[in-house]
Amino acid sequence: MKYLPGQPQDLPGNRQQLANYTAQHFTYAVDAGVATITLNRPERKNPLTFDSYAELRDLFRTLSYGDDVKAIVITGAGENFCSGGDVHEIIGPLTKLDMPGLLSFTRMTGDLVKAMRACPQPIIAAIDGVCAGAGAILALSSDIRIGTARSKTAFLFTRVGLAGCDMGACSILPRIIGQGRASDLLYTGRSMSGEEAERWGFFNRLATPEDVLSEAQIYAKNLAEGPNFAHGMTKKMLQQEWNMGVDEAIEAEAQAQAICMMTNDFHRAYHAFVAKQKPVFEGD
Amino acid sequence: MKYLPGQPQDLPGNRQQLANYTAQHFTYAVDAGVATITLNRPERKNPLTFDSYAELRDLFRTLSYGDDVKAIVITGAGENFCSGGDVHEIIGPLTKLDMPGLLSFTRMTGDLVKAMRACPQPIIAAIDGVCAGAGAILALSSDIRIGTARSKTAFLFTRVGLAGCDMGACSILPRIIGQGRASDLLYTGRSMSGEEAERWGFFNRLATPEDVLSEAQIYAKNLAEGPNFAHGMTKKMLQQEWNMGVDEAIEAEAQAQAICMMTNDFHRAYHAFVAKQKPVFEGD
Amino acid sequence: MKYLPGQPQDLPGNRQQLANYTAQHFTYAVDAGVATITLNRPERKNPLTFDSYAELRDLFRTLSYGDDVKAIVITGAGENFCSGGDVHEIIGPLTKLDMPGLLSFTRMTGDLVKAMRACPQPIIAAIDGVCAGAGAILALSSDIRIGTARSKTAFLFTRVGLAGCDMGACSILPRIIGQGRASDLLYTGRSMSGEEAERWGFFNRLATPEDVLSEAQIYAKNLAEGPNFAHGMTKKMLQQEWNMGVDEAIEAEAQAQAICMMTNDFHRAYHAFVAKQKPVFEGD
Repeated sequence: MKYLPGQPQDLPGNRQQLANYTAQHFTYAVDAGVATITLNRPERKNPLTFDSYAELRDLFRTLSYGDDVKAIVITGAGENFCSGGDVHEIIGPLTKLDMPGLLSFTRMTGDLVKAMRACPQPIIAAIDGVCAGAGAILALSSDIRIGTARSKTAFLFTRVGLAGCDMGACSILPRIIGQGRASDLLYTGRSMSGEEAERWGFFNRLATPEDVLSEAQIYAKNLAEGPNFAHGMTKKMLQQEWNMGVDEAIEAEAQAQAICMMTNDFHRAYHAFVAKQKPVFEGD
Repeated sequence: MKYLPGQPQDLPGNRQQLANYTAQHFTYAVDAGVATITLNRPERKNPLTFDSYAELRDLFRTLSYGDDVKAIVITGAGENFCSGGDVHEIIGPLTKLDMPGLLSFTRMTGDLVKAMRACPQPIIAAIDGVCAGAGAILALSSDIRIGTARSKTAFLFTRVGLAGCDMGACSILPRIIGQGRASDLLYTGRSMSGEEAERWGFFNRLATPEDVLSEAQIYAKNLAEGPNFAHGMTKKMLQQEWNMGVDEAIEAEAQAQAICMMTNDFHRAYHAFVAKQKPVFEGD
Repeated sequence: MKYLPGQPQDLPGNRQQLANYTAQHFTYAVDAGVATITLNRPERKNPLTFDSYAELRDLFRTLSYGDDVKAIVITGAGENFCSGGDVHEIIGPLTKLDMPGLLSFTRMTGDLVKAMRACPQPIIAAIDGVCAGAGAILALSSDIRIGTARSKTAFLFTRVGLAGCDMGACSILPRIIGQGRASDLLYTGRSMSGEEAERWGFFNRLATPEDVLSEAQIYAKNLAEGPNFAHGMTKKMLQQEWNMGVDEAIEAEAQAQAICMMTNDFHRAYHAFVAKQKPVFEGD
């Protein structure tokens, strides 16, 4: 920002370094401002457990303050994205819980989606193979999805006797692929093929299994080059305007964009343009 | 539900048997939990009349309590779906009404859509031939649409001097096929071809004229096998979250899914999975 | 309207003639009830300036009362639609403004979109060549878009260090092409090709560069033939129901359509149908 003597990031407690975070329940590595989260139990197709849910939620919450990470890639090890909540480690224990216990579980999983939508970094999902249940929700909760033709994305909650309304699916999926196609996937739990996913707008594009991760990382790296403050505002407003009227959204954007016009990155872009150069953004 | 001594369905007045309902203004038959509603004036391409509107509205309202019907197919007899409000039987009389009379008509037709969206059973429309005006709205108000390539779906209100905003069309159609394509159809009243309908996500898939009804019934039969309580919750939440923010939708789903985790069907699915069997759902 | 002794248009101050308006910062011509607005600085690919923004805003606001204009075409001269806010005439001065100054600029540009969405005439955009930045927003804010295969539509705010949330883009674009594809365009600022635009529902159809303007004008002329009061209601309700629940939208449409059933155009259509003639609408 131009006119403020101190940066808001300088406030005590308002800044975290996340390039060196060591994950317990998945792998995590940062390169050139891009954090790559890899679900890493390939022999089980990378299921989620109570612990990995909680650590993902906490990590995404902390990333809101982690200004050394500019974009995030999420993927799975060994030719599959994520098989969702493990039947033995999650479904079994859930059958023994009472209502307050169940609600604290569904709220925890929902909090992961809330944290993914609330952090300012764009999230790019790289999806191969199985992408099922809560795994499909991780893909859904990302900003951008690059997938493979052979991938299979299934919102298969109905297969375990549950409803399609899990972690926000009935709200988010219809806005990505339309209400009719979302209804089909959520009622039946059937797999969406990679080709369908691209055709319907769930995947932004298809890549080969060999390239899907690197394409996601290149996409993320391009976004990581900035303007990061503005990207975070784009993400915030896409969320914020979800159920605003058009006129209210226009006023909200008038305010948000005026804020962005106070950044140095806006000035850098203008001066680079005048000098016929490519702007170098710094995120302030 | 697990912990309740009595079932909520046991409450007096809260249960209806609808397998043996006899319809007056269309045909109605139930097989294996799937009700098939057939608009049945094929010589006129199955128009709607005041009486058939009202009976459809009342039937869908009652279906909310009809737990012997698990899924619904709606179709038309004789190679057409529905030609909409009959010009002689509906449009003519409407030209003679005063404002309170007109409003009670538009509210009645709107009540049919509200009842279709409120009943817990998924509705599958099987669409061949003409699907026009209020007929297109019946298709729009269903959960799933299977159509034929030769079908013609037209929101043709503008052709009789009216607006595209009829029975919820300006709200529902944009969420299925996008705001731009919906605007085109609603302003012009032109026919959407079967191929466009599939490409745009209005039809979930295309079938041949010979197979369109049976494909819809097979789809419905698969859903009728359950889990029915969960399917009803999926339908309720798709409706409920229409204009919620993402975070509010996530909390709403945390509650709704926790409710579903209290059902016996969730437990049945888990135990079947552990026993490597296919679960048999019972709807409680 | 049938029962009112005087027409609401007869109220003093409630009527404007806009067929003979002379524009200062673009060209403007009305033919058979269709106004064509042509951005006309082809040597610069038709950029917007402070003055053209303001004149467009004022014109669209006045069109709400201009009942001699029934439909609007917006296009650009010389094989390009619009290159957006001019870097020298807009971006440069913006870098010198304080926050109140910036906000009054972003509110003015937002007011143009509000005015385009609020006027009752359907707006058809004819898009060839460059359609970028605020130019892409003009296209987005139209009701119908006809484009060419070679056109390039880019929401390139990010390229000048700004966010994708400009003039309502984060609200409107996802409803037209889906949340995932909109996110890609808004984060990256990349060009959407004409083929993508058609496939994703941004363009209603493709035309050749030679025909794109005339196709838009024919489309507009067909709408200009009416029923105009009803078309204005369709436009109003598409806007009004943006973030209503389904049940509330159905009630809103029951009222709106009952109003349309009071028009003479509804009666004309009925009588023409009975006489097996094509109705001639008059807009009352």
